[in-house]
Amino acid sequence: MKTSKRLDYVPPSPIRKLVPFAQEAKKQGVTVYHLNIGDPDIRTPEVMLNVLKTWKTNPIGYDQSQGNPEFIGALLWYYKNIGFSFLKQEHIQVTLGGSEAIAMALFASCDPGDEVLVFEPFYANYNSYAAVTGVNLVPVRTTISTGFHLPDRKTIESAITKRTRAILFCNPNNPTGTVYTKEEVSILVAIAATYRLFLLSDEVYREYVYDGKKHVSILSYMGQIPDAAILLDSMSKRYSVCGVRLGTLVSLNARIMAGVLRIAQGRLSAGLIDQLVASKLTEVTPSWLRETHDEFEKRRDILYTGLGRIPGVTIPRPEGAFYTIVGLPIKDAEHFCQWLLTDFRDNNETVMLAPAPGFYATKGLGKNEVRIAYVLNRKSLARCVDLMGIALVKYKSQN
Amino acid sequence: MKTSKRLDYVPPSPIRKLVPFAQEAKKQGVTVYHLNIGDPDIRTPEVMLNVLKTWKTNPIGYDQSQGNPEFIGALLWYYKNIGFSFLKQEHIQVTLGGSEAIAMALFASCDPGDEVLVFEPFYANYNSYAAVTGVNLVPVRTTISTGFHLPDRKTIESAITKRTRAILFCNPNNPTGTVYTKEEVSILVAIAATYRLFLLSDEVYREYVYDGKKHVSILSYMGQIPDAAILLDSMSKRYSVCGVRLGTLVSLNARIMAGVLRIAQGRLSAGLIDQLVASKLTEVTPSWLRETHDEFEKRRDILYTGLGRIPGVTIPRPEGAFYTIVGLPIKDAEHFCQWLLTDFRDNNETVMLAPAPGFYATKGLGKNEVRIAYVLNRKSLARCVDLMGIALVKYKSQN
Repeated sequence: MKTSKRLDYVPPSPIRKLVPFAQEAKKQGVTVYHLNIGDPDIRTPEVMLNVLKTWKTNPIGYDQSQGNPEFIGALLWYYKNIGFSFLKQEHIQVTLGGSEAIAMALFASCDPGDEVLVFEPFYANYNSYAAVTGVNLVPVRTTISTGFHLPDRKTIESAITKRTRAILFCNPNNPTGTVYTKEEVSILVAIAATYRLFLLSDEVYREYVYDGKKHVSILSYMGQIPDAAILLDSMSKRYSVCGVRLGTLVSLNARIMAGVLRIAQGRLSAGLIDQLVASKLTEVTPSWLRETHDEFEKRRDILYTGLGRIPGVTIPRPEGAFYTIVGLPIKDAEHFCQWLLTDFRDNNETVMLAPAPGFYATKGLGKNEVRIAYVLNRKSLARCVDLMGIALVKYKSQN
Repeated sequence: MKTSKRLDYVPPSPIRKLVPFAQEAKKQGVTVYHLNIGDPDIRTPEVMLNVLKTWKTNPIGYDQSQGNPEFIGALLWYYKNIGFSFLKQEHIQVTLGGSEAIAMALFASCDPGDEVLVFEPFYANYNSYAAVTGVNLVPVRTTISTGFHLPDRKTIESAITKRTRAILFCNPNNPTGTVYTKEEVSILVAIAATYRLFLLSDEVYREYVYDGKKHVSILSYMGQIPDAAILLDSMSKRYSVCGVRLGTLVSLNARIMAGVLRIAQGRLSAGLIDQLVASKLTEVTPSWLRETHDEFEKRRDILYTGLGRIPGVTIPRPEGAFYTIVGLPIKDAEHFCQWLLTDFRDNNETVMLAPAPGFYATKGLGKNEVRIAYVLNRKSLARCVDLMGIALVKYKSQN
C-alpha cells in the first residue's frame, strides 16, 4: 500500500528526532538536561491557571471559528498596549498554535510549487509547513560570523524568481537569537513592496530582546504595505503556555482574512479551555513579564560567557529570543548530539542539544553547529555549560 | 496583492455561513434554536471537569507530538473495551480534533490531484480538508429514498479511476444519520482490497446507534486490510467535549503512522490541558454513556415523528449519529434557511438549519433538503418541530 509521495518529504523534527535516545538514557537513570527544545521552565501566570480552578462552563462546546470573542478582545488589548491601536477584530484569526498560523499563511500566499524566501538557518518546522502546503522554501544564507544578520538587499533580491510569492522571517530569531535592526526590517518591507511579495513576520519572541535593544515589528509597517504584511504570533513563549495551543495570524488584507477564516471553519474552532485561559493575558502583570524577560537575559549571559570560554566554541552574542546557534570544534553535530545521549555521562548526567543541519535547507551547512535553547534555570544552565566543556574534550579524544 | 488560487477553493462552511444572520436576529432579541451545528447541550462528565478544578501542572508545557502518554493509554483502554485489544501505542496518533485526523489521512494517502471516493451527501468539512490537501473528492450518490444507504458494488466501482487512492466514509453518518450494515462495510473493504485503496472510516458517532442496531467498525477489518484501513475518531461527541480539540488517527500501517507523526512534530503537540481532561474517559461511567445514547434516541423519535406529520416533509428514519437530512416542500433550501433567520418569527423565536446543498459535491443536488442536528433538549426540539411546521406554511404563502 503506497502512501503519498509528498508524505516522504515531510521531514522529521531535528528538535525531536533524538528523543528516543534521550528516553533510553533516562531509562538507565541518567539525568538529561533538555536544551534541545524551547519549552521553558518559567511558571505559567497564576491568573491563567485560576481560570481552570474556577471553571464553570459546561458543556465544553465549540467556539467561534475566528476565535473566542473574549480572547480576540484580549489580543486587541495586547496589541494596543504595545502601540498598535489600529487593529480591529476582523484583522485577527486565532490559530491552533503559531504552527497553524504559519501553515495558513503559506497556503494563502502560495500555490503549490511557489517559492518563499527564508533566511537560513531557520526554524526547522518551517520545512514541515512547506512540505504540508507544497511550497518551496528558498534559503538565503546568513552566517555565524555576522551574528546571522541579513545580507545586503542585492543578495536577497538575487534569490527572487518568477515563482517567489513571499518572504518569511522570524524576529527575534529562532534558532539564531538574532534581532533584526530597523534597517534590516525596512529593507525587507521595501523588497516586499517592490516585488509585490507577502511579508510574513514570525514574532513569537517579541518580548525577549536584550541589552536594551528595541524590537521592530511588522505591525509598524502595516500602514505602508497593508496587503502584503502578515504577522504570525503565538501565546506559547510570551506567557509560558507552550501546551496551550494558541497563536494568531494578523493582517489588514481582507482576502487573506476571509480565506483563512474559511480554512478555520473547516477545523471548527480552537480549544475553548485554552482560549479562556489565554484571555487572562490582560491580567498578567508587567512585573511578571519583566521578570521573565530579565531571567532569560541572565540565562543568556551565563550561556554566552560560559560557552565563550570553551576552546574552539564560536558563539555570537544572542540578542533576543532564547536560542542561539553555536559553532563547535566537531565535524558532525548529528553524531555529537546523539553521542551525548548514548555515550556521554558525567556524574550520570548529560545534555540534549539540537543538531543545526536540520535548521538549514542547504545540504552541508551547519555541520559543526548546534542550536541551544536556554530554557532551564540558571543553575542547570551553568551545569550544562560545564557538561558541554567536559563532553567536547572527551568527544575529541574518542572520535 | 494576489492570494493563492487554491485559497479560493476553500469553501465557506454551510454550517456556519449563515451565522451573521443568526447574530443579527439575536441582536433584535429573537431566540434562535440552533439545529445547524452538532454542538450538543449534553453536559460534559464531571470527572473530566474535575481535572480543571484540581489542576496542578505548572508550567503548561508542550506534550509529546504523538500524544500525551496517559491519554494514549486511555484511548487504548477504550478501544480494548469495545473489543479491539490488538491496538498498541504505535497505532495511535493524537490529533487536534477529528478534523486534523481527516486532513492528515488525506495528505498521507493522496498526492495533489489524486481522487478520493465519498458518498454524497457527506460531511461538508471534507471539502475543506480536500481543498487544503489538494485532493479531488469524487462523489458517489446516495439518496433520501433509500435512507442514504450505499449503492451496489458496481456503482461504487464505476467511480474508481487511475487516480483513486482512497474511499472516505462516515459511519454512523453525518449528515444523513445512516448506519451502514455489515454487508455495506464488507463491500467497501472488499473494494479497498481489490483496488488497493485506503479505506478511511470516520467513526466519530460510533456510540450513537439506535433501535438496538450494532455499529460495524473498520477496526473489525484491520486484520484483513492492515495497510489500507485508517480509523478517524474524535472525543468531541462521545463525551460532549466539542471544545476539547482532540481526535485520533488509528492505523496498523507503519508508513502511515511514521508519516503522520512527522506532520505532528511540525505542529509540536496537541493541547496539554485538553489531553489531561480527555484522559479521564476511563472514568466516565457506563450509565453516563447509556443515558446520553438514550437521550439522543428519544430526541430522534421526537424529530422523526414530529417532522413526519408535516405535509410535504420527507424524513428517513435516522439510524444513528444525531443528524438527519430532511426533504422539504421548498425549492431553495439556502433561501429558506436564510429566510428563517431574517424574516420568520413565531412568538419571537426561530430555528437555524443547515442548507443541504453544501453537503453535496454535485451541483443542483439537495436543493430542497436541509440538515438537522438534534442536539437540543426534547422540549426545545419539540418547539423546533412546531416552528418548522408554521414556517413552512408561511414560507409557501409568501414565496
